[in-house]
Amino acid sequence: MSNEKHIKISGSGIYLPSAVLSAEIEDKFKLVKGFSEKYSGVKKRHHVTFEGNAYMGARAIEGALTDAGLLLNQIDLIIAAGATFDYPIPNNSSMILSCLEQTENLNIITFDIDTTCLSFVSAFEVASKMLDGHQYKNIIIVSSEISSKGLNPEKPETLTLFGDGAAAFVLSYDAEGPSKYYKGLFRTYSEGVRDSIIKGGGNMYPFKDYPHDFQLHSFDMDGFKLLKMAKKHIPAFLESLLTEIEIADIDKIVPHQASKAGLAIFKNLGIFSENLLVENLETHGNCIAASIPILLHESIKNGNIKRNDNCLLIGTSAGFSIGAVFFKY
Amino acid sequence: MSNEKHIKISGSGIYLPSAVLSAEIEDKFKLVKGFSEKYSGVKKRHHVTFEGNAYMGARAIEGALTDAGLLLNQIDLIIAAGATFDYPIPNNSSMILSCLEQTENLNIITFDIDTTCLSFVSAFEVASKMLDGHQYKNIIIVSSEISSKGLNPEKPETLTLFGDGAAAFVLSYDAEGPSKYYKGLFRTYSEGVRDSIIKGGGNMYPFKDYPHDFQLHSFDMDGFKLLKMAKKHIPAFLESLLTEIEIADIDKIVPHQASKAGLAIFKNLGIFSENLLVENLETHGNCIAASIPILLHESIKNGNIKRNDNCLLIGTSAGFSIGAVFFKY
Repeated sequence: MSNEKHIKISGSGIYLPSAVLSAEIEDKFKLVKGFSEKYSGVKKRHHVTFEGNAYMGARAIEGALTDAGLLLNQIDLIIAAGATFDYPIPNNSSMILSCLEQTENLNIITFDIDTTCLSFVSAFEVASKMLDGHQYKNIIIVSSEISSKGLNPEKPETLTLFGDGAAAFVLSYDAEGPSKYYKGLFRTYSEGVRDSIIKGGGNMYPFKDYPHDFQLHSFDMDGFKLLKMAKKHIPAFLESLLTEIEIADIDKIVPHQASKAGLAIFKNLGIFSENLLVENLETHGNCIAASIPILLHESIKNGNIKRNDNCLLIGTSAGFSIGAVFFKY
Repeated sequence: MSNEKHIKISGSGIYLPSAVLSAEIEDKFKLVKGFSEKYSGVKKRHHVTFEGNAYMGARAIEGALTDAGLLLNQIDLIIAAGATFDYPIPNNSSMILSCLEQTENLNIITFDIDTTCLSFVSAFEVASKMLDGHQYKNIIIVSSEISSKGLNPEKPETLTLFGDGAAAFVLSYDAEGPSKYYKGLFRTYSEGVRDSIIKGGGNMYPFKDYPHDFQLHSFDMDGFKLLKMAKKHIPAFLESLLTEIEIADIDKIVPHQASKAGLAIFKNLGIFSENLLVENLETHGNCIAASIPILLHESIKNGNIKRNDNCLLIGTSAGFSIGAVFFKY
């Protein structure tokens, strides 16, 4: 393919906080027993107790470095890819770096990329373009997300859907091996920009003028409109994506674990056989930008994705955006 | 230079909200007359009245597109580069896109990059690596910052220092012309990660558990420690940067307008002649990530920077990071 590059996933790691069963949430918030599984498709997810975004991100990076057999001083850039944060300032990546055991002579850059749920996929695209075997040899992408502190107790559909967790991947320039970045495709449609939103806490509703209110300061989504937009735009998006990719060339698809209904869109398109799609919504919920990399990590570790498999990461995000990256693992 | 690429600034635009004189702030907050100019070096800055980050960013982009003679449907990617936002979700770039008059058939991606005050410089580095004349021909970087809503009325040193504003640049792949990206260099040092901070409003101090308190929810910095770190690390950083650049090759330096004392560091190094450095701290204050691009835009428009000039963008940011990009305009 015209944009091919010699990029290899050298290693990955995850961090999951304490498991929370759906029954516990249903008890606590007086929901109908079984609502979570039936409505959201989630039996279990993980929620932080003492952890912050930086803590989880740093632990995931330690796992990824061990897995890759690399030290922090061999990393040129850390991209923190996600939507949630410990502090409004400084950025997540600086906080994460400060939670890592320092080695001598670090020559590292850090920055954050935010495309909400698609942040890991966007960062994969950016890292693939930046890796040149010279200035940038190894880049870590880390997605560490805490959704549990921004949920509205009066909205069972989001309350039962979201989970927390972190995943980190080392991407390396590797001129020798068979691993490859093939292509990335992203589209932002400005319709639906307010259909996934946290209204309060930024400059539109500053906290000094708008005291805490779950309606204003929690994540809110119009699930019905989002699904409608996804159904409308995904077919044309896939058509553009598949101009250079044969479906027969795809070994595994790692979709964003948006929701039960969101995953059903991909299943119901009728173009992918069901065993192409991997899933962990049932056991992890929607972990925002961390969903795709946690699922990718677990699929590699449990053998669902093997070396030389051609993998498609694909998802939707607030914005409204659709994005995908296609690569040979 | 080894990393040279055919990158050209095709156009730029800015948006500045209403001017606020230092005397007005000194009157309002009962500060000693003349404090702002003496301590912060700021006579005037701009503060939003009705504007949000997205509104200002969109107006700056319209200016940049007109300046470049391009339409929105010729842009492949919009990077919103900055630290402040209208809403925690979705990201700034999606909000900005939704504030632009839409043309038909947009095939655009948007994402956000955050390295606080260095965000524009990081985004310049990322855009330069991504532009390939094929998948990415034209990229807009837009920095739109509102500091005025996050200032502590009890801290005169920040209250008088910061301003609001937006700037947008179109970067294009241009194989024919003399314009070039030469190199970028960035370092994140994990010391001082909490010396520029907004503590409240993220997952560490969630709104629901911590009512509004200027101490917790305003920007806070330890100016003395930050200056000490900058003085410690800037000489070694410049030594690394200048391995491939002769000082005689630099026509203009556009430094982040951090503060009077921050700018003095560059002046007092004794390696740059004073007429290399451009400034607008006195009339704009520190506009976070928008400072460098507003100053770059104004320097181009007032003739201080001319075509074929070799320009160095350099600054520091919360994190603590130092970053620079060197290019031929």
